[in-house]
Amino acid sequence: MPNTFRLEIEYDGTSFHGWQVQPSDRTIQDEIQKVLKTMTGTKVVVSGSGRTDAGVHALGQVAHFSCRTGISPEKFHDALNKMLPPGIVIKDCCYAEKDFHARFSAKKKTYQYRILNNELPVAVGRQYLWHIRKKLDVSAMQTAANHLVGEHDFKAFEGSGSPRSSTIRTIYQAEFSQKDHLIFFKITANGFLKFMVRNIVGTLKDVGVGKITPDDFYEILISKNRTCAGATAPPHGLFLMNVEY
Amino acid sequence: MPNTFRLEIEYDGTSFHGWQVQPSDRTIQDEIQKVLKTMTGTKVVVSGSGRTDAGVHALGQVAHFSCRTGISPEKFHDALNKMLPPGIVIKDCCYAEKDFHARFSAKKKTYQYRILNNELPVAVGRQYLWHIRKKLDVSAMQTAANHLVGEHDFKAFEGSGSPRSSTIRTIYQAEFSQKDHLIFFKITANGFLKFMVRNIVGTLKDVGVGKITPDDFYEILISKNRTCAGATAPPHGLFLMNVEY
Repeated sequence: MPNTFRLEIEYDGTSFHGWQVQPSDRTIQDEIQKVLKTMTGTKVVVSGSGRTDAGVHALGQVAHFSCRTGISPEKFHDALNKMLPPGIVIKDCCYAEKDFHARFSAKKKTYQYRILNNELPVAVGRQYLWHIRKKLDVSAMQTAANHLVGEHDFKAFEGSGSPRSSTIRTIYQAEFSQKDHLIFFKITANGFLKFMVRNIVGTLKDVGVGKITPDDFYEILISKNRTCAGATAPPHGLFLMNVEY
Repeated sequence: MPNTFRLEIEYDGTSFHGWQVQPSDRTIQDEIQKVLKTMTGTKVVVSGSGRTDAGVHALGQVAHFSCRTGISPEKFHDALNKMLPPGIVIKDCCYAEKDFHARFSAKKKTYQYRILNNELPVAVGRQYLWHIRKKLDVSAMQTAANHLVGEHDFKAFEGSGSPRSSTIRTIYQAEFSQKDHLIFFKITANGFLKFMVRNIVGTLKDVGVGKITPDDFYEILISKNRTCAGATAPPHGLFLMNVEY
């Protein structure tokens, strides 16, 4: 009988072309699979809770793999961290239930988006922030974000090229917080569509700079029309924080 | 009459081979000089408060340049930030006194060294930390660091290949602080020798892991013998925080 292993993974998206294996680019999934192949001698498929786009970071991505092996979770944990490139860290590795599936068993996911709202950019840590010069009205952004909470059809915030059976999702939390010039946006849902967080943040930015009102934001949400929403926020401000099961 | 301009600079040392112009490598000084040449049409020499080694970061490096120009400090500030690569940010640009010299006029400099003391490394922000797995005794490290404060001959902590008229310096502060798994070491002096902070931190680490005692650390200091001190700590944990005049 194969064992199922569950991984919790942190990665710096800067040096990778996202989670998902690509024919020619370095991806996180591929780097982990390469190490597991070296360790076990067979091809092992690692399934993540979801893809993250190129440049997006994770502090708590969850993935699983199944494998007939005598190797313990502790051994996998140590060896993966020794053999993976520096931008990927396995935070935890344990046995999971046989039917555990990182994507299909997931109940909630939380993302955080980080904005630096200041005239001056930064050099140190710039790869983890979206720098916006113009002063943002965070209070108006929060008013707009409140419209997201609950069950809605998020088609207006879905990126193209991603066929889904349904674009309805439930958002449990959508909260802004601030520390000096840093603005944090935390969003928890039962699932996210392609580019959904980045499209939401890009549209909330339009609220923040006064281009649209919180009411306009609500109209965009209920329009179910992507062309009404704002530009997609850049990937490097986005962090997958955790996945709940 | 030429004007003297003073710059305050933040940089991420990751992508550069240190401050000082090198024949073939990308350096911070060189990147700034290239932009100033484009702006003024003449070669402009930018003098920093001191060199930082390859990989070392700065949140408050200070530099000056003199130039016959009608360009205002505000214009230099804006244009430098537009034209410099992303790892360098000019935080401030202003006129300075004619006889201001970023290096010779400096009274105090403060560095910070950042250590992640945890079994697990991190992926996000790893380029700004020295990861040490073994649990450090920060209290013993502070006891050792207290011996540094005051006027001493720091020959034991000087890197080779740096002829100086004197190896005597005065340290005003050498303090550890801690937040979760992060350890910060802040050190202020009237000047630093080559590799001095990194050699001090490397030797304090030996105290932290119990390889030597705080008394041994004092013996190393007064030995004035580099071969007694510990290994040089890696550059990427080190930040030049500010320079006082």
